[in-house]
Amino acid sequence: MFSMSKPIEIVFSEKKTPSLNSPYLICGFPGTGLVGKLAVDYLIKELGAIHMADVFSSYFSPQVVIQADGTTNIVKNSLYYVKNNNTNNQSINDLPHQSIDSLKSTTNDPLSSKDLILLTGDSQPVVPGSEYVLSEQILDLITKFKISNIYSLASYVTGTFVNDPKIYGTATNPEMVKSFRSFNISTLDNGNITGMNGLILGLGKLRGIEGICLLGETSGYVIDAKASKNLLEIVNNVLGIHINMDEMNKRSKDTEILIKNLEQQMMAKSGQFPQSVPTEEQEEELMFPQNRKSNMGYIS
Amino acid sequence: MFSMSKPIEIVFSEKKTPSLNSPYLICGFPGTGLVGKLAVDYLIKELGAIHMADVFSSYFSPQVVIQADGTTNIVKNSLYYVKNNNTNNQSINDLPHQSIDSLKSTTNDPLSSKDLILLTGDSQPVVPGSEYVLSEQILDLITKFKISNIYSLASYVTGTFVNDPKIYGTATNPEMVKSFRSFNISTLDNGNITGMNGLILGLGKLRGIEGICLLGETSGYVIDAKASKNLLEIVNNVLGIHINMDEMNKRSKDTEILIKNLEQQMMAKSGQFPQSVPTEEQEEELMFPQNRKSNMGYIS
Amino acid sequence: MFSMSKPIEIVFSEKKTPSLNSPYLICGFPGTGLVGKLAVDYLIKELGAIHMADVFSSYFSPQVVIQADGTTNIVKNSLYYVKNNNTNNQSINDLPHQSIDSLKSTTNDPLSSKDLILLTGDSQPVVPGSEYVLSEQILDLITKFKISNIYSLASYVTGTFVNDPKIYGTATNPEMVKSFRSFNISTLDNGNITGMNGLILGLGKLRGIEGICLLGETSGYVIDAKASKNLLEIVNNVLGIHINMDEMNKRSKDTEILIKNLEQQMMAKSGQFPQSVPTEEQEEELMFPQNRKSNMGYIS
Amino acid sequence: MFSMSKPIEIVFSEKKTPSLNSPYLICGFPGTGLVGKLAVDYLIKELGAIHMADVFSSYFSPQVVIQADGTTNIVKNSLYYVKNNNTNNQSINDLPHQSIDSLKSTTNDPLSSKDLILLTGDSQPVVPGSEYVLSEQILDLITKFKISNIYSLASYVTGTFVNDPKIYGTATNPEMVKSFRSFNISTLDNGNITGMNGLILGLGKLRGIEGICLLGETSGYVIDAKASKNLLEIVNNVLGIHINMDEMNKRSKDTEILIKNLEQQMMAKSGQFPQSVPTEEQEEELMFPQNRKSNMGYIS
Repeated sequence: MFSMSKPIEIVFSEKKTPSLNSPYLICGFPGTGLVGKLAVDYLIKELGAIHMADVFSSYFSPQVVIQADGTTNIVKNSLYYVKNNNTNNQSINDLPHQSIDSLKSTTNDPLSSKDLILLTGDSQPVVPGSEYVLSEQILDLITKFKISNIYSLASYVTGTFVNDPKIYGTATNPEMVKSFRSFNISTLDNGNITGMNGLILGLGKLRGIEGICLLGETSGYVIDAKASKNLLEIVNNVLGIHINMDEMNKRSKDTEILIKNLEQQMMAKSGQFPQSVPTEEQEEELMFPQNRKSNMGYIS
Repeated sequence: MFSMSKPIEIVFSEKKTPSLNSPYLICGFPGTGLVGKLAVDYLIKELGAIHMADVFSSYFSPQVVIQADGTTNIVKNSLYYVKNNNTNNQSINDLPHQSIDSLKSTTNDPLSSKDLILLTGDSQPVVPGSEYVLSEQILDLITKFKISNIYSLASYVTGTFVNDPKIYGTATNPEMVKSFRSFNISTLDNGNITGMNGLILGLGKLRGIEGICLLGETSGYVIDAKASKNLLEIVNNVLGIHINMDEMNKRSKDTEILIKNLEQQMMAKSGQFPQSVPTEEQEEELMFPQNRKSNMGYIS
Repeated sequence: MFSMSKPIEIVFSEKKTPSLNSPYLICGFPGTGLVGKLAVDYLIKELGAIHMADVFSSYFSPQVVIQADGTTNIVKNSLYYVKNNNTNNQSINDLPHQSIDSLKSTTNDPLSSKDLILLTGDSQPVVPGSEYVLSEQILDLITKFKISNIYSLASYVTGTFVNDPKIYGTATNPEMVKSFRSFNISTLDNGNITGMNGLILGLGKLRGIEGICLLGETSGYVIDAKASKNLLEIVNNVLGIHINMDEMNKRSKDTEILIKNLEQQMMAKSGQFPQSVPTEEQEEELMFPQNRKSNMGYIS
Repeated sequence: MFSMSKPIEIVFSEKKTPSLNSPYLICGFPGTGLVGKLAVDYLIKELGAIHMADVFSSYFSPQVVIQADGTTNIVKNSLYYVKNNNTNNQSINDLPHQSIDSLKSTTNDPLSSKDLILLTGDSQPVVPGSEYVLSEQILDLITKFKISNIYSLASYVTGTFVNDPKIYGTATNPEMVKSFRSFNISTLDNGNITGMNGLILGLGKLRGIEGICLLGETSGYVIDAKASKNLLEIVNNVLGIHINMDEMNKRSKDTEILIKNLEQQMMAKSGQFPQSVPTEEQEEELMFPQNRKSNMGYIS
C-alpha cells in the first residue's frame, strides 16, 4: 500500500463523493491539549456528520491507536460532511455569504448553499516536510468541492492555568481580522502557528481560499476540554451553529476538576507555588528562550 | 546495494521458499527491555526454526552489531519458519482454527495446517516514515504464504519495578479481545503502540489479516527476561506451544537479581525511595506530561 | 503545489526578471538573535529595494507567520534587488571592482556596474539535507544574473552579554581575509558556520563565486538589534553603502535596555551573578553547556 | 550540483585514477574525540599520500569549515592514496598477504602489491538513512581498485579519563579476531559501532571484503590525540608501517596536559570528584540506561 513514492492513500467510504455546495472546511488536527480536535470531534458527533473518507499515510506517526473496546487501528485522518438540509435535531444556521466571509454578524438570512466538511484525525504528519505534501493533497481533494473558507481550530499554549481561557485568532484576510472583536476573539499580532492547523490555512491562501485559525488558550499540561468548550462556543457563534453543548459542558467541568487537583498537588509540593494563576512577575522567572517557547505562548 | 530508491533488500537463504500452510506470523521487533525480541529469539531456538531470509535496509540504524565471538555484522531483521510436522524434541500443539482466531481455548484437535513464521531483528527502522514501507514489504512477503494471523510481542513500559509483570493485549478484532480474559491477558483500552510491533498489526488489518499484540509489563530500565518469560508463557498458552522453558526461567532469575540490586542501590542513594514498588501516591509525583510518557505507561 | 518531487517553488513578482549588472548577493537567513536577517531587512527598506521573487518550499518549517495586522502567511524566503542608478534618498557608493573583491578600501571610483540582490526570509530549511538543495536552486537563479560576490550576514553566539559586540569574518579567498583588519573585522580561524548563511558561501565557491560571511557577536538570548547595527555598519563600509541608520540606532538602544533588564533580573535572582558583563574567569565556569555550543561561540 | 536525486558528488583531482594493487582502505570518519580521524590525517601527512578525490554530499552536515588562514570551505570527505613504492622518508613495510589477513604477525616478506587508500573527512552524513547510501558509493568506488581489506579507525567512549587508553577491536572474520591478542588489541564481544566507521565494514562484508575496526579508548570530553597516538601505534604494527611519530607524540602530550587541567578543575569544583579515575563503584552510580550510553562504553 505505502511506498516512499506513494506515501498517502485516501480511501473513500462511498464510491460516489457527496455533492456539496461551496462547503466550509472545519479542521482540528491533534495538537497540545487536543483543544481543536476535541471541538471538531464534538461537531462531527452533534451534527451527525457523515463519514466521507479516511486518509492513511506513512507520514503519520508509526502507531496503532487502541480503542475503548480493546481493538486497535492504524492512525488516520478522517473527513466527514454535513449537508445543510441535514436536521439531526440540530441544524446549521443559515448565514449570508458576506457575513461569513467578514464574520461581521450572524443574521437570519437563509444560506442554503453552505455545507460543511469536517476534518480531524489521530495524528499530524511526523516526516520532515510532509505537512506541506499532505496539506496540498487535502486541498486538492476539498477544492473539488469548491470550498469557500477554511476554519482551523488549534491551541494557544501558555504554560499556566487560567480560569477563563481566551480565544485567539488570525486570518488570511484583514477584513476577517476586523470582525474578530465582535466575536470576542483576541487578535494575534505576532508569532507562528506550527503544523497542519496553520499550514492548511497558509497553503489555502496561496490557492485563493481565505481562512481563519481560532486558538483556544490552554496550559498545555492536560487534555483541555475547558479550552475546547470555549473555542467551540465561539466557533458556533461565528458559523451560526446551534448544537447541544451538554456533553461538552460536562467534559469541561471534568477538566476543571483535574486542573484544580493538579494545582493543589503543585502547591503541596512547593510552598512557593501560587494559589492563583502565576502573576506576570512570576512568569518572568521563565525568561530565557530555552525555558519558554515564546513570549506570547506557543501555538500548535 | 542500497540507494535512496532501493532501501530494502531481502536475501533468501534458499533459492526456493518453503511451502507453508496458512502460517501464523509471530514477530518481536526490538523495543524497550527487549521483551518481545527475547521471546521470539527463544521460540526460534527452542522450536528449531529454520532460517528463511534476512532483511537488510538503509532504514535501519546505521550500525554493526558485535557478536560474542568478536566478529561484527551489519544490523538486519531475519525471518525463520517452523513447519508443523517439525519435531525437534518440541512441537507445536495442534489447534482448531476457530479456537486460535478467537483465542477461546486450546483444544487437542489436530490442526496440522498451522505453520509458523518467526520474525525478529537487531533494529527497528529509524528513517522517518520508513516503518510503514518496511511493514508493507514484510506483509507483501508473508501474504504470499497466505498468513492467517499476526502475533506481535512488545513491551508495556511503566517506569517502576513490579514483582509479577502483567501481560497486556490488544487485537484487531473484538472477538479476539473477548478471549483475553481466559488467557489472563489484561485488555488495553487506550494508548498507542509505536513502531513495527504495532504498525504491522495495523497495516495487516487494512489487508484483512487479523492480529494480536501482547505486551509484557516492564520497568524500562533493564533488558527484562522476567517480563519476557511471563509473555512467552501466555504466548505458549495462546498458541498451544509446549517448549522447554528452563533456559528462559534461568534468565528470568538473572533479571530478578539485577532488579533487586538496582532497587537496593537506589534505596542506598535516597532515603525517600520505597523498599517495595512505588505506591500510586508516589507515582503521581510524576504528573506532568513531560515527566511521564502516559498515564498508562508507554508501549514500544 | 508541493510534492516530494517538487519541494521548491519560486514565484516571480514580474513576468520579466530585472536586468542586473554583475550584482552582489547579500543574504541574511534567520539565525540566532536574527542578527543577519535584521540587517538585510533594514537594507531592503532603506535602499528601497524592489521585490523580485518569493521562494516557497516544503523544506521550510511547517508554519504560518502572523503579521502585525493580525493576518497570516505561509513562511517564505524573498529576493529583492537594487539597481545602482536607484536613488531613493540613499545610494550605493560606487566601488572599483578590485577594491570590492579584495575589500582593500572604498574609493570614489564610480562602479556603475554593481547592483544588489538582497535575500532573506522567515525560515531556514528544516528538512535534513535540504539546505544543500535550496542553496543550489538559489545559486542557479542568481548566477543567471552573473553574480560577482556573495555576502552572507550571520551571528556569532557567545552566551554572554558584551557592551560592544564585535564583527567576525571568514571568506572563500585569502585575499579577502587579508583585508578584514582594515575594516575592523576579526578573522575567524576555526569552527563551522552551520545553515544557509554558511552553505551558500561554500556551494558558491564550488561554482567559482567568491564570498564573505560577516558575523555579529551576540549573546543568543535576545533578538539582537545591537549586534545587527554593528554588523550593518561594517557591511556599509565594506560595500560603501550610505544609508540612514536612525531607525536601526533606535532599535539598538531598545535591545540595550532589554539586555540591561535581563542582567538585573539575573543579578536579583543570583547573588553570584556579576553586575557587569561576565569576566573571562566567570565565563570559564561556563556556564551551562546548553547555553553555549562551543568555547569560541557558535555560529548560525 | 546537488538535488534530492543526486545527493553525492565525487570529484577526482586527476582525470585518470591511479593504478593501485589490491590496496587496503584505511578510514577514520570523524567521531567522538576525533580519535580515528586524527590518526588517518596523520598517516596521510606522514606517508605523503596523494589526493585522489573529494566527496561532496547533501547528506553531510550543512556547514562550511573555517580554516586556520581564515578561509572557509564546504564540508567534504577526501580520498588519498599511497603507492607502495612511495618512499617519502617513510615506507610501508611489505607484508605477506596471509599475515595481513589474519594479522598473525608482521614478517619481512616483501608484499610489493599492497597499496593504501586513505579516507577521512570533515563530516559524517546527517541525513537519516544516508550513511548506507554513502558507504555503498564509497565501496563502489574502491572496489574498482580490488580493495583487499578495510581498516576503520574509531573511538570507544567511556566517559572517564584513563592514564593508558586501550585499543579495542572487532573484525568481520573470526581469524582476524584471533590475532588481536598478539597485537595487544582488546576484543569486543558485544555492543554496536554506529556510523560510517562501522557501516563501511558491515556493508563491505556483504560484498565479501573483510575488515577490522580498531577503536581507541577515550573519555569523550576532549579531542583526544593521546587515544589517537595509541591507536596509531597499533595500526602501524598491524600494517607494518614505520612512520615518524614525533609530531603525534607532541600532540598526545598536549592532550595529557589538557586532561590534567580538566581533572583539576573538576576536583576544585567538587570535593567528591576522585583524584584518580573513577572506581567501578562510583561508575555504577550512573547505572540506568538513560544515564549511560552502554554498560561497555559507547562507540562512534
